[in-house]
Amino acid sequence: MNLFIEQKDKILTAGYAPAPFMLDYRKKLSIATLANYLVHTAELHAERNGFGVEKLQSKKHSWVLIRLAIELKRAIHGNSNLHISTWVDKIFGITTLRCYQIAQDDEVIGYASSVWSAIDLEKRSPVRMTEIFPDKNIEVTFEHSIEAPQKLPSFSPFKYGLPFEVGYSSMDINKHFNSMRYIERCFDILPLEEALPETGFCKRAVMNFNKEALHGERLVAGYCKDAVNDSLYHLSITRVDEPETVLFAIDYYR
Amino acid sequence: MNLFIEQKDKILTAGYAPAPFMLDYRKKLSIATLANYLVHTAELHAERNGFGVEKLQSKKHSWVLIRLAIELKRAIHGNSNLHISTWVDKIFGITTLRCYQIAQDDEVIGYASSVWSAIDLEKRSPVRMTEIFPDKNIEVTFEHSIEAPQKLPSFSPFKYGLPFEVGYSSMDINKHFNSMRYIERCFDILPLEEALPETGFCKRAVMNFNKEALHGERLVAGYCKDAVNDSLYHLSITRVDEPETVLFAIDYYR
Repeated sequence: MNLFIEQKDKILTAGYAPAPFMLDYRKKLSIATLANYLVHTAELHAERNGFGVEKLQSKKHSWVLIRLAIELKRAIHGNSNLHISTWVDKIFGITTLRCYQIAQDDEVIGYASSVWSAIDLEKRSPVRMTEIFPDKNIEVTFEHSIEAPQKLPSFSPFKYGLPFEVGYSSMDINKHFNSMRYIERCFDILPLEEALPETGFCKRAVMNFNKEALHGERLVAGYCKDAVNDSLYHLSITRVDEPETVLFAIDYYR
Repeated sequence: MNLFIEQKDKILTAGYAPAPFMLDYRKKLSIATLANYLVHTAELHAERNGFGVEKLQSKKHSWVLIRLAIELKRAIHGNSNLHISTWVDKIFGITTLRCYQIAQDDEVIGYASSVWSAIDLEKRSPVRMTEIFPDKNIEVTFEHSIEAPQKLPSFSPFKYGLPFEVGYSSMDINKHFNSMRYIERCFDILPLEEALPETGFCKRAVMNFNKEALHGERLVAGYCKDAVNDSLYHLSITRVDEPETVLFAIDYYR
């Protein structure tokens, strides 16, 4: 699915040509699909540098995405290829800060920043990357203009969508609700003309992946508009019977 | 997104490398994603041969997928590329029978067959392909082992899923509910272990795309198991307030 992969100075770049069916009704790449590309590029980078999911799974560990922030200067159209570059900015104890640069038409149009943790699959607890790979030297400094994604505060969405169940099509290979489906389900409850207008695009999105959901679990997405910033929507996904447990939270800036 | 495209004797072949996030929990390509690839390959073929969607839209017409059948000999895994070939088998009045061959690991592992119609976007009525393109000579005979997808009879699913609304993430560029999301929403209500077991795969699927749904419409998927064939599930999507109107029907053979 990637057109090419190349690595230079610890920074890996992959090229993508989105198919028409991956575009939204505005013929733009949705944030969920972009997030899929980012995660996929991260995996390509990790794999090429010896700490990919398969390698980790052989050591009974895996990667978990904890937070992700995306900032765009303009919408991503489907008429030319997308180039995503990624690198490890910093390892802090149990978390890894991974960054991204997003380019199209020979122009940098956005950045992303993500926080990951390696977890012990048996204990379900995070571990230090440096414990699993004591001799890895993967950090690199590359100037870019986006901060690490912050922890989003709790809030009460005033408007809920219809409850839904985690089904076959939204399960990942770990039998959990696929991270990217969180984003889709949140965007699905937004008022279309106001929040996702034909000429608009996502300027910034900050996501927190807090809890996992399993097949058959009944979830619900809710949202509220920020009291001060008119272009900011707070969204979250909770369990229907435990609405205080936030599985996923996203701040979306139109 | 396609690795290559080549055409020989009116048959176009495109190569695909599914990304990990396109695989289901069994690490297999889902029928919804395969259907996306088939439709995309059809569009590549139509475009290369002068009757693609853009060309049709410039004449105020478009393509509509009416029926699709897929037959597989084994599951499609994500470890090697997929080669999809497509050709126009026959034009019958207002419908076009388009066929597909699906190959992986240098082996033909399945076939598909689809019925399309060109529609007049203003009148919303089907038109003869030969009226729009009187001098096209696109039919080709290529032996393959699957019949044209039949019209599925009406039936009453005895088990319904949760109602859902057509949201942003499932709208296509025509602002309609994306055809491939019909498949996902149907598969989501099936009992996982029984209908989509870890070692299983879809042997055959016949789909009828009967009616369109718009943003905000409230729909529901339902299913029943065939009374005679234990591996056959009848599924459909209807409007919540008009359950007699079948928007989408699928017969799925495990």
